Amino acid sequence: MNSDSGLLAPVWAGTPAADLTADEAWLQAMLDVEVALANTQAGLGVIPDEAAAVIAEAAHAERIDLATVALDARETGNPVVSLVKALTAEVARIDVESAEHVHRGGTSQDILDSAAMLICARVLDRVAHRLTDTADALADLADRHRGTLMAGRTLTQHAVPITFGLKASGWLVLVLDALDRVRAVRDHSLFAQLGGAAGTLASYLEYAGGGVAHGTELSRRFAAELGLPEAVIPWHALRTPYADLGAVCSFVTVALGKIALDVQGMSRTEVGEVAEPGGEGRGASSAMPQKRNPVLATLLVSAARQAPHHAAVLTQAVLAEDERAPGAWQSEWQSLRECLRLAGGAAEVAAELTAGMSVFPERMRANLDLTGGAIVSERVNVALAPLLGKAEAKELLGRIARDARPFEEALAAELTHLDAARLEDLLDPARYLGYADAYVDRALARHRAAS
Amino acid sequence: MNSDSGLLAPVWAGTPAADLTADEAWLQAMLDVEVALANTQAGLGVIPDEAAAVIAEAAHAERIDLATVALDARETGNPVVSLVKALTAEVARIDVESAEHVHRGGTSQDILDSAAMLICARVLDRVAHRLTDTADALADLADRHRGTLMAGRTLTQHAVPITFGLKASGWLVLVLDALDRVRAVRDHSLFAQLGGAAGTLASYLEYAGGGVAHGTELSRRFAAELGLPEAVIPWHALRTPYADLGAVCSFVTVALGKIALDVQGMSRTEVGEVAEPGGEGRGASSAMPQKRNPVLATLLVSAARQAPHHAAVLTQAVLAEDERAPGAWQSEWQSLRECLRLAGGAAEVAAELTAGMSVFPERMRANLDLTGGAIVSERVNVALAPLLGKAEAKELLGRIARDARPFEEALAAELTHLDAARLEDLLDPARYLGYADAYVDRALARHRAAS
Amino acid sequence: MNSDSGLLAPVWAGTPAADLTADEAWLQAMLDVEVALANTQAGLGVIPDEAAAVIAEAAHAERIDLATVALDARETGNPVVSLVKALTAEVARIDVESAEHVHRGGTSQDILDSAAMLICARVLDRVAHRLTDTADALADLADRHRGTLMAGRTLTQHAVPITFGLKASGWLVLVLDALDRVRAVRDHSLFAQLGGAAGTLASYLEYAGGGVAHGTELSRRFAAELGLPEAVIPWHALRTPYADLGAVCSFVTVALGKIALDVQGMSRTEVGEVAEPGGEGRGASSAMPQKRNPVLATLLVSAARQAPHHAAVLTQAVLAEDERAPGAWQSEWQSLRECLRLAGGAAEVAAELTAGMSVFPERMRANLDLTGGAIVSERVNVALAPLLGKAEAKELLGRIARDARPFEEALAAELTHLDAARLEDLLDPARYLGYADAYVDRALARHRAAS
Amino acid sequence: MNSDSGLLAPVWAGTPAADLTADEAWLQAMLDVEVALANTQAGLGVIPDEAAAVIAEAAHAERIDLATVALDARETGNPVVSLVKALTAEVARIDVESAEHVHRGGTSQDILDSAAMLICARVLDRVAHRLTDTADALADLADRHRGTLMAGRTLTQHAVPITFGLKASGWLVLVLDALDRVRAVRDHSLFAQLGGAAGTLASYLEYAGGGVAHGTELSRRFAAELGLPEAVIPWHALRTPYADLGAVCSFVTVALGKIALDVQGMSRTEVGEVAEPGGEGRGASSAMPQKRNPVLATLLVSAARQAPHHAAVLTQAVLAEDERAPGAWQSEWQSLRECLRLAGGAAEVAAELTAGMSVFPERMRANLDLTGGAIVSERVNVALAPLLGKAEAKELLGRIARDARPFEEALAAELTHLDAARLEDLLDPARYLGYADAYVDRALARHRAAS
Repeated sequence: MNSDSGLLAPVWAGTPAADLTADEAWLQAMLDVEVALANTQAGLGVIPDEAAAVIAEAAHAERIDLATVALDARETGNPVVSLVKALTAEVARIDVESAEHVHRGGTSQDILDSAAMLICARVLDRVAHRLTDTADALADLADRHRGTLMAGRTLTQHAVPITFGLKASGWLVLVLDALDRVRAVRDHSLFAQLGGAAGTLASYLEYAGGGVAHGTELSRRFAAELGLPEAVIPWHALRTPYADLGAVCSFVTVALGKIALDVQGMSRTEVGEVAEPGGEGRGASSAMPQKRNPVLATLLVSAARQAPHHAAVLTQAVLAEDERAPGAWQSEWQSLRECLRLAGGAAEVAAELTAGMSVFPERMRANLDLTGGAIVSERVNVALAPLLGKAEAKELLGRIARDARPFEEALAAELTHLDAARLEDLLDPARYLGYADAYVDRALARHRAAS
Repeated sequence: MNSDSGLLAPVWAGTPAADLTADEAWLQAMLDVEVALANTQAGLGVIPDEAAAVIAEAAHAERIDLATVALDARETGNPVVSLVKALTAEVARIDVESAEHVHRGGTSQDILDSAAMLICARVLDRVAHRLTDTADALADLADRHRGTLMAGRTLTQHAVPITFGLKASGWLVLVLDALDRVRAVRDHSLFAQLGGAAGTLASYLEYAGGGVAHGTELSRRFAAELGLPEAVIPWHALRTPYADLGAVCSFVTVALGKIALDVQGMSRTEVGEVAEPGGEGRGASSAMPQKRNPVLATLLVSAARQAPHHAAVLTQAVLAEDERAPGAWQSEWQSLRECLRLAGGAAEVAAELTAGMSVFPERMRANLDLTGGAIVSERVNVALAPLLGKAEAKELLGRIARDARPFEEALAAELTHLDAARLEDLLDPARYLGYADAYVDRALARHRAAS
Repeated sequence: MNSDSGLLAPVWAGTPAADLTADEAWLQAMLDVEVALANTQAGLGVIPDEAAAVIAEAAHAERIDLATVALDARETGNPVVSLVKALTAEVARIDVESAEHVHRGGTSQDILDSAAMLICARVLDRVAHRLTDTADALADLADRHRGTLMAGRTLTQHAVPITFGLKASGWLVLVLDALDRVRAVRDHSLFAQLGGAAGTLASYLEYAGGGVAHGTELSRRFAAELGLPEAVIPWHALRTPYADLGAVCSFVTVALGKIALDVQGMSRTEVGEVAEPGGEGRGASSAMPQKRNPVLATLLVSAARQAPHHAAVLTQAVLAEDERAPGAWQSEWQSLRECLRLAGGAAEVAAELTAGMSVFPERMRANLDLTGGAIVSERVNVALAPLLGKAEAKELLGRIARDARPFEEALAAELTHLDAARLEDLLDPARYLGYADAYVDRALARHRAAS
Repeated sequence: MNSDSGLLAPVWAGTPAADLTADEAWLQAMLDVEVALANTQAGLGVIPDEAAAVIAEAAHAERIDLATVALDARETGNPVVSLVKALTAEVARIDVESAEHVHRGGTSQDILDSAAMLICARVLDRVAHRLTDTADALADLADRHRGTLMAGRTLTQHAVPITFGLKASGWLVLVLDALDRVRAVRDHSLFAQLGGAAGTLASYLEYAGGGVAHGTELSRRFAAELGLPEAVIPWHALRTPYADLGAVCSFVTVALGKIALDVQGMSRTEVGEVAEPGGEGRGASSAMPQKRNPVLATLLVSAARQAPHHAAVLTQAVLAEDERAPGAWQSEWQSLRECLRLAGGAAEVAAELTAGMSVFPERMRANLDLTGGAIVSERVNVALAPLLGKAEAKELLGRIARDARPFEEALAAELTHLDAARLEDLLDPARYLGYADAYVDRALARHRAAS
């Protein structure tokens, strides 16, 4: 049930998010909303129960011609007008009488917005699931590698030693941040939309011959029917849910993108500290037999470079005129779908990447030792500052770092008053890890609390 | 204390946000963080109390040459290296001994990130304050105008009647959404930053000769000293706070921008339903004496068109390499400031606009009547559908709407079986407001709950 | 031949741009490039002519399973590896020997980039065609309405009189700007891509056993075979063409979007100065029979709100690491396609809108007269300034504009020394059009020169 | 003359672009436009020559209170109204009579847009100058290192050999692309703006008592006075120049950013193939004495991450309502300035970086040899394909690449039929450079042609 193959979007091609957001899925979600409306109105005695049953029977995407609905949307500016016509015809084929009760009092935006929220709920559930898997994998990496030394790198240069466990803990915290935000939007921002032409419910109440009490029930039951929270007030022109969705999808992709960037840096031929999970054909080049490209990280970065821009479209769509905006509203649909696909695809890729990542502690150690001890010059500096003064110590170490000799050798030559054992201790990166292990514990504790 | 006059940014020129984010304010915030570090270290016995006192005495922005610090940042990639040098010199002028204890174990990013959080806290507090004022003003408008009829407009065309109270209620809900998000970020995302060169606290512990327990205390007390929440783990390469800040500032501007867009539409010469608060020179043109431009709304829209782009820079900066990113980190500073200024300026402007807005109910009514009743054709449709069938009723009304005669006249001519009283009732927009009044109540209830 | 129905993108659903950029079209374009490579190599004697013929016979999209290629791209990071495999199999089904000569020396990026350029060329040609139609329609409007008076509006308020011809001339100039830029990119930026794995042509030369002269011929002939200009140097990591494409597609949409925004403003129920071309169901609402929504303008604005963000993805993709970027490259594909679709769809919609736009001069005149002459207060000011002094004249007119009486009446009361004929002349908007007519001529002259 | 220290923007702090775009420079540019208008009008006999002379005498930024003008802009929505008032007062202090002739017929947007174009011209001239320097330095690097072998890297992995000369040639071509675009916008997009309140010149003609011929002269002479091209039609609501400026500034930063990204990758501690020009304090860390951070590249990347977003604001500002947009216009000012500063700062930094870059051919060679010959496996593949068949050759080489033994050793073991000399030749990266040298020549030829 997915007409978009994702040929140009390998990050989400073939993933659950692709199916959940395909044209066919949108069509079905809109039909689901029509059914929910009919059920609600039947429950309130506005339309016959039989009509609601027939509408439910007819409301299947495969009965509707997608291409016609899509093309008709060029005439009316949205796909609902044509969809209602098609649904009405389908209902009439079953029962002519019931056709009068389709979309009773309904307005296009109620249907499309509520359908979008259904789709978002489904995709965010899946994203949360895969972020949980990712967090679990990272927690495992953090714990297992809390003693695996590696170079901390700042502005491309070796800085001070860290552990791979600490790095994985950072990734874990970022994923937990993403998970918190996904859950919050899932539970509190995806409101059912019901307002009628301009947010007064007037047409629904007119059909029902009902007053305020009817409106209260209608709004409450419709949301319940969809399994979505009820808004205080119709949000057809108050687009907070879309802004929230853009922000959260975007954050998911950049958080996972940060992990991917680190994996790429650590996968460079010269660095070789981690490798992606392999497999038949994974990472192959069309021309170079030796290549094992970090494909999963590549896909993650590609998503992270796109999603924030789609999110910006959604945020800007809050800037909407009147009771329905001529352009802002229509700009949301494709942008929202792309946000969902990118976040959904990225969550799948990240789960696969983190579950199967190979870690090479010996390469980490070899890289750590590349600078001959210069990586702990900060520590040496701290040790020397009280002896030589802060400025002089730093100047001396800068000089040593630029010395042609290896750092430890030049250091020994300068610091003749330090004995060899003290020097060896000073230069041992394992003795300059500070609070790293405790931070791993703190991250793991947060992970346990989030589970 | 503000070297940027805001000549090209009237939306924030001269506002509290301008002062709170000026170069001088950043300089002082960085100095505040150095003082907090010194105080924390003195409290833990790492440096002498006297040194902390001297540092606090020296740490005033006016003692530091801003231009030098700014220029030096081109050499080191950030302004802290030079600032520490300047501060150390100032401390030494008071007490040479104390100068050794400046920035003890510190790393540039700890200072700059924590300073940024201090500034954000100050600006968000002000934004929350002015959003509260705006919400109060809107609640008042909503309540006073719950009976003021006007045309609901969708895709630029009159749709169905609404009330201005309902419109103001929608604005109110959007402002409350913004306020909720500002408060959430203010309270839960602005973490103190303390991690040292690569997030291990190693240099701080080395200076202190301390272990894990010391690290725990150091982190806790430093955050408390700054009045900011403590992070689970240093976030130097995990930029959730910046992403949250971008999203919230951006949302504030677009939410207020939506109100502004509506005000602009209603201020058009042909519409004339509201007017901005006037005053000496407000809205004047350099050439056209008759002009009273809606300047405040214009400024709000200008902010809303910019902020989402700055926010996208911040979101993309999550995509950061290693333990400190060469480019992503540095891209945040100006973007964050601009986000804060735009949100801060917009909140001031919106408070002024909503507090002093003039509403012209008679123009609203005149506009509502422009279409001779066609604005309630949806209602007539509902009434006719059971009589004529849904499709036929709609077709009839479409025909009448295109008739050369006024809508009510053409309708009367067609519907000869309806008596005049029924027709008059049918066409009375005041009888087609649905749930509007109840929605006003719901919005006001949320406002009361948020106060 | 289009698997994406465009359900959520009515601006391009069903347009030529949709077909030209569908997954199937991309597949075919990649196959076209493989054929071009084979033909080039056959022409240079590197592979047998028969092999090239068989490859051409096999290289049809309908022979390839799109879904498989799309899914396989998740393994290798791009769709070419799998496509080559499938093509090789198809060739082998015809002639086993020839299969050895498929994609000889080829690298994935050469195929994908060159295919993208083919697609861009086709879409830009169509866009240029429809922009030409749009320009023609606007030139006609400009000429016909050079004498049609209307209110010039600045910051939502009536400013001074203009003509609708002048407004249409401005639209025309903007469309000609877009057309110039489309043609420039079409002719000068869409380079064939041929470089091999890292831009040295090494594999191609190795297969050919050829040297520099062979490389020169290979590069020249391959570009000629594709009908695209040849690059100075392979641009696999130098993404100027993509940045140019993003910029030009984005500009097309915003230029057309400006026209659409004006149409929306002039279509407002209260303004009513223009109407979109109508037709069966065009602009219908699902609930309100009287509605005739400006759907075409709405679609144009929706495109203009999206395209600049996709363009920004493409511009940022210039920021690419090494000889092939792990993420930047992959982020381009979907963004480029969306840029092309939005520009392509918008060009169709704009051509339809401008060709069939209804103009209502009498409504323009009625609106112009709404302010009782205040719209020419600038002119009155100019007339009075020499008499009263600049400041005093402006102050007087400001006072009159705020007077309860109609502008002309209040003015007559104040300026008792002016005779009625002079006053009538002063207040006649037709006498305050300045250079408007000459500007129409200048715009039309540019249009003729561009044809 | 620069009130913004650039504390948070080291990429442009202290550069010519900072001075050329400071608030004071904008103030002066607006005054320059007032002078140009007065001179033009004096030349046409509309105002006395003496008045023009006095206006020129008074029009100096230091005579105007910047803070007042900035604050007043909050009342009128732009700084010109207040500036004209201040200028008029200054003129009156010299000669009361002349004060009547200030800003005669002028409208705020004519002044501000024309001033912006003056500033853009100055900044783009400087950018072109520094891009030329950068191109010269890169041409020199390309030529000197045409024989310097290094690893070509794709998707983070060694791919095939290239030369550093080829890489530098690619950078050169990108800079030349940027230079072409800067010059094109400088020469053809920066139009003088003169149109009056709504683009009809009416007020100017009214003051002059002139007709069409006067308008033609006025427009022509005013542009000439400013040294800017004349527009076909006033572009107050047709914002092509701003869109072009955004695109070109953005492209400059990302083109230079690509170079910077490569420099960063090659500067990594593990790679060490290039180093930035050093100097006193350059690249120093506040805590780690050994650090030499690639600061210049970092600043370049920070610019490239911001500018495309500012450019998007400018592109979206084309989406402007009516004859002057309430929000779009005002959103341009700060965004344009930031674009100019980022491009201007980046051009300075890039010129410095490329002029002083250190290149380490021996490290390039050592890295090239890291994979024991696997970097030429593509070549071996080409050699083996005719012997073993394409698929089998590739499979064999993939197996060898994953073999525990060094690549050349494993290869020798498998290919027992190849003699040692042939094998050595096959594995020599210097013999697998393809067309690299010729591409260097082509790039250098383009550079010479552009000079």
